Amino acid sequence: MIQISSQMIQVVAILISVLALGFAAWLYTWVKAQPSSNARIAEIGEYIRKGANTFLRREYIVLARFTAIVAVLILVFLPSPIWKGNIADNIWMTVSYIFGTVLSALAGKIGIQVATIANIKSAEAAKQGIKPAFMAGFRGGAVMGMAVVGSSLLGVTLVLMLVGDASSVLGFSFGASSLALFAKAGGGIFTKTADISADLVGKVEMGIDEDDPRNPAVIADNVGDNVGDVAGMGADLFDSNVASMSAALVMATSLGGIAGNNVKMVFAYAALGLLSSIIGVATARIGKNGDPNKALNSSTYVTTAIYAILTAATTYLFGFEWRIWGATAVGLLVGTIIGIASDYFTNDAKPPVREVAEASKSGPAFTILSGFSYGLLSALPALIGIAVSALLAYNICAPLGAGYGMFGIAMSALGMLSIVGMIISNDAYGPIVDNSRGLAEMGGLGEKVIAISDELDSAGNTVKAVTKGFSIGAAGLTVIALLGAFMSEVNAAAAELGLPGIQNFDIMNPTVFFGLIVGLAIPAVFSAMLMLGVDKNAQRMVAEIHRQFDTIPGLKEGREDAKPDYDKCIDIATTGALKELIPAGVMAIISTLVVGFIGGADAIGGFLTGNIASGLLLALLMSNSGGLWDNAKKYIEAGNFGGKGSTAHKSAVVGDTVGDPFKDTAGPSINTQITVVSLVASLLSVIFIQFSIF
Amino acid sequence: MIQISSQMIQVVAILISVLALGFAAWLYTWVKAQPSSNARIAEIGEYIRKGANTFLRREYIVLARFTAIVAVLILVFLPSPIWKGNIADNIWMTVSYIFGTVLSALAGKIGIQVATIANIKSAEAAKQGIKPAFMAGFRGGAVMGMAVVGSSLLGVTLVLMLVGDASSVLGFSFGASSLALFAKAGGGIFTKTADISADLVGKVEMGIDEDDPRNPAVIADNVGDNVGDVAGMGADLFDSNVASMSAALVMATSLGGIAGNNVKMVFAYAALGLLSSIIGVATARIGKNGDPNKALNSSTYVTTAIYAILTAATTYLFGFEWRIWGATAVGLLVGTIIGIASDYFTNDAKPPVREVAEASKSGPAFTILSGFSYGLLSALPALIGIAVSALLAYNICAPLGAGYGMFGIAMSALGMLSIVGMIISNDAYGPIVDNSRGLAEMGGLGEKVIAISDELDSAGNTVKAVTKGFSIGAAGLTVIALLGAFMSEVNAAAAELGLPGIQNFDIMNPTVFFGLIVGLAIPAVFSAMLMLGVDKNAQRMVAEIHRQFDTIPGLKEGREDAKPDYDKCIDIATTGALKELIPAGVMAIISTLVVGFIGGADAIGGFLTGNIASGLLLALLMSNSGGLWDNAKKYIEAGNFGGKGSTAHKSAVVGDTVGDPFKDTAGPSINTQITVVSLVASLLSVIFIQFSIF
Repeated sequence: MIQISSQMIQVVAILISVLALGFAAWLYTWVKAQPSSNARIAEIGEYIRKGANTFLRREYIVLARFTAIVAVLILVFLPSPIWKGNIADNIWMTVSYIFGTVLSALAGKIGIQVATIANIKSAEAAKQGIKPAFMAGFRGGAVMGMAVVGSSLLGVTLVLMLVGDASSVLGFSFGASSLALFAKAGGGIFTKTADISADLVGKVEMGIDEDDPRNPAVIADNVGDNVGDVAGMGADLFDSNVASMSAALVMATSLGGIAGNNVKMVFAYAALGLLSSIIGVATARIGKNGDPNKALNSSTYVTTAIYAILTAATTYLFGFEWRIWGATAVGLLVGTIIGIASDYFTNDAKPPVREVAEASKSGPAFTILSGFSYGLLSALPALIGIAVSALLAYNICAPLGAGYGMFGIAMSALGMLSIVGMIISNDAYGPIVDNSRGLAEMGGLGEKVIAISDELDSAGNTVKAVTKGFSIGAAGLTVIALLGAFMSEVNAAAAELGLPGIQNFDIMNPTVFFGLIVGLAIPAVFSAMLMLGVDKNAQRMVAEIHRQFDTIPGLKEGREDAKPDYDKCIDIATTGALKELIPAGVMAIISTLVVGFIGGADAIGGFLTGNIASGLLLALLMSNSGGLWDNAKKYIEAGNFGGKGSTAHKSAVVGDTVGDPFKDTAGPSINTQITVVSLVASLLSVIFIQFSIF
Repeated sequence: MIQISSQMIQVVAILISVLALGFAAWLYTWVKAQPSSNARIAEIGEYIRKGANTFLRREYIVLARFTAIVAVLILVFLPSPIWKGNIADNIWMTVSYIFGTVLSALAGKIGIQVATIANIKSAEAAKQGIKPAFMAGFRGGAVMGMAVVGSSLLGVTLVLMLVGDASSVLGFSFGASSLALFAKAGGGIFTKTADISADLVGKVEMGIDEDDPRNPAVIADNVGDNVGDVAGMGADLFDSNVASMSAALVMATSLGGIAGNNVKMVFAYAALGLLSSIIGVATARIGKNGDPNKALNSSTYVTTAIYAILTAATTYLFGFEWRIWGATAVGLLVGTIIGIASDYFTNDAKPPVREVAEASKSGPAFTILSGFSYGLLSALPALIGIAVSALLAYNICAPLGAGYGMFGIAMSALGMLSIVGMIISNDAYGPIVDNSRGLAEMGGLGEKVIAISDELDSAGNTVKAVTKGFSIGAAGLTVIALLGAFMSEVNAAAAELGLPGIQNFDIMNPTVFFGLIVGLAIPAVFSAMLMLGVDKNAQRMVAEIHRQFDTIPGLKEGREDAKPDYDKCIDIATTGALKELIPAGVMAIISTLVVGFIGGADAIGGFLTGNIASGLLLALLMSNSGGLWDNAKKYIEAGNFGGKGSTAHKSAVVGDTVGDPFKDTAGPSINTQITVVSLVASLLSVIFIQFSIF
């Protein structure tokens, strides 16, 4: 057994983070060095890059203002009002918060930077076959994966080392989450506004292809893939990763201090997760005529196996608790099971997708009803998975002493998220190859190249199900752990103020129950606001597309000199998204304040539980039914039940359009919403226990 | 202050029940005595009656078998295994259970009996103007209202008087609920199978009118209104009413015994609620050219006011606790507020319906997205209403002593349900006038009569929103109270067995949390199973309708001698409904057993909470979005956004079709599902605390 200090492990964590960032830089150079020669593709690629950067700039200006306001509030009030506590604490908290927002924003920016290059490279590479095209797409995604996970581990470690206090990690985490909340919402509204409108006028009304360059919304659609799926998703997973580490750290610190074995384990396991992902990415390969699906999945499984082995070895060498390793392993295992279950409901080789496709023959109402029903059903295995892993992780670790059960749940979440570097690489791969498919079509690279891009694209969709299983499961466990962190914070604050702490959140306590019932409504209202945003924006953009086709002579016929006004569509999506992204997030934060001031810590305990309950349910329903509709449409387009243009296809397109904001706007934002609410609750616990009506 | 014994109050309750039953008989005779002369209408009315009775007979045979099995299980195991406890207890429990199922079944039967007469009378009366048509419809509905509430109060009082033990009231309630669960599910699947199929082929594909007699599914559609909306709804509200009384009685008994003031108050308030409804129904009137909307709403408000005054007077005279009266009043008030909020989201004079109608211009995907979003938003006011009334009712009554807070919540639920006699009358009015509209069209009574029926029908839809507010709110509070009843039962059983009882359901307890997360999935899976049932059945029936139009010569053209085969469609709906109605309910019951045997009483506490959480959310979402889509379609049909046949109309029909099983199959069944699960948990509490893994 080797003795190692907490500092030493943190230094190793920093080294591995730097290694990941260096690897990201190398991958970026590699992607950039791939050949590209087609002028038409370069021109369109430039349009996309410009649009994405413009949106990001405008979005970040809005968010910078918001961040500034919050930073001032934190400076004055947190961790305790400036006139009462130590001013240095408030400054550190504010700095941690800003650091969190900046790193999160950076993650989005880096993602856009590489994705808008990798899409071009992958499209061109497809001329040489599937292998180089896959590698360009995958390594482009991996830049994002490595950068996000490297910087999140680096950030958390630095904040803890410099400030020496787990509460400021919560501040850092809040910075990351609040930015992620708005970035995800804004990007999600942008991308689906463009996607829906382009499809509706192009595919449905006019019967032209998805990426036909005559369509004025086609560039906005491709920009959307980048700002929504790449930048938004990057910020989102940055946030989940930081939140799960923060929750684990808060509990680890309260169980044996900052230099104890528990803190060591958190850093060791997180660093090993990143290391495993580096190895997984570095060794990912595809045969010459290989199956991209298999390549992606096998690299995920390789990473998982390496992680399990490395953590077991570390636990043995450093004499860590095997029970805690067990909790982590449970997380990893259950994550895989949830992934397989989501795959069942969204894979077109399985009954649900096929039945929805068949039901579409009778009209769009049946597409919606059956898809929605399967979405509801799909919640069952995932919820059972989360429930069982929480129960097991708790009971495995509970014998270690008071508080260890909850710590076990936090470590189980960390286990599920351990391979997040790999998950992000796979997830970012999706929009890149989706874009490159568009470029191949717009650049006229021919049927064969488009077929290759299609195959890569479809693999991205299928793999998404598995990775989504991990991220939803982990988010579920993380928010449970954050509930535990909230209780730790409340009791710490109560002890300091000489107030009575809380022993439990009893459902039979009417204040807890009140919070729970109100909490149920928040994720529902939050997602409704985002979807209504998409709905309204898309109506505006549809009108604009109609206007262009009606007023620009020769556009419909595809005359050489007839150019659509792409920028106008990008502008509509941008303006709309910026208008709608703030209110939903602010609603969630303000309702937390209202409930806290009405019912204090008890009500907030219930409120968080209510948020978790309805959030998990809605996130699973929306993500899975959305994925299912998308694949049912693709299944029909592949020639089943009448193929393109049939009644079944028209119905399936309606399903897909409904599913778009389900799975790409509302569904994945809910996790972030709950995380933000949990962090706000923890940070304000000291205030809620002093000022509340009940 | 007047002294009165508990027995005396129970005798008064019985007398008022008998008065209500007598009044129902008088109303029935009145309706039957209304003139009818049109042979064509009589013929079609006979078809509908025969179809409804056939379905009911076949359904009741299935349910009788199920009831017999459960009765045997109860006889052997409940309240404690027959080889351990007193055999007389088991016999009483079994008898109470069977009594509950029989009364519930009877409520459905009576409803069908009168509704299939009142529809004919109302159609004929419409020839004389709106006033007699309204009275025939309303009094037909009132027969149902009076019979249901009269028999439920009579049943509960008799069981308590004869058995002298609140637990057997739970057995009675379980009988009522389990029958309601299947009746509601079966009727709901039948009615929506027929409705969707008839609309899809008739309205959408062929462009013929809703009740065109050429449509082979038209009779099945009208039968569905009766078996789903009348019989199913009757069984459902019978069950809610009994469940809320049972929960209150279990707690009242544990707080001061069976002869105490609390038990007196439960009976007094329930009896006064029935009395107020009798007065409200008896005085309901409409002017000669009056507004049926106003007539229905004003009779609801009159009933509410009478109830508030009568209970206050009783509380004063008998020296009951004013605090408990206060809790009841809170329920009444919040019920009204929830009703008004639901009205906002489903009334076509308000923005949500109009915006969804407008969004429909851009295609069905927008109808679905915006309607679904507003459905999510509509959960907010109702959930806040339930949360606030639980918090207030608890805190108003808590000063009376330990256990009174929860009793306050139970009384608040009773307050919301007090006017249930009126609610059922209004609710049953809807399908009756809907049917009579169909009869008027099929009988060729002319445009003017159809216009009157249309007005009556539309009033039925609007009023439904308000009454639904009451019933969802009350169901929410009732299940909270049932959670309290469960805890009482657990502790009573634990005390008897010498085991430790439970003090709380702590969310931080992993076993509770496990139950909570699994519980979330149950209402989702339950509603998915019902909707998939409708979806599959409707596809079968659509195929049959197509077959008939294709193979029966002259049917499409409406030749005199070409008769559609109505019975075949009724048979498809019946067979399908009978096949699908058992599995969903059994799934809910079995998962309760599984969770109970895994985690014991703690897990069940969480499980019930999870059921309540996701059940409330889904029920509100589905009921309100369904109502909204229905009214958006009607709004467009009234000539807005292009009127009938426009793109907006076609999209709105898709929305309505999706909304049909939302609002009439899944949504309203969820309440019953949660009630059944709660009752199963309470009845089996003694077993769960002895045998469980964790």
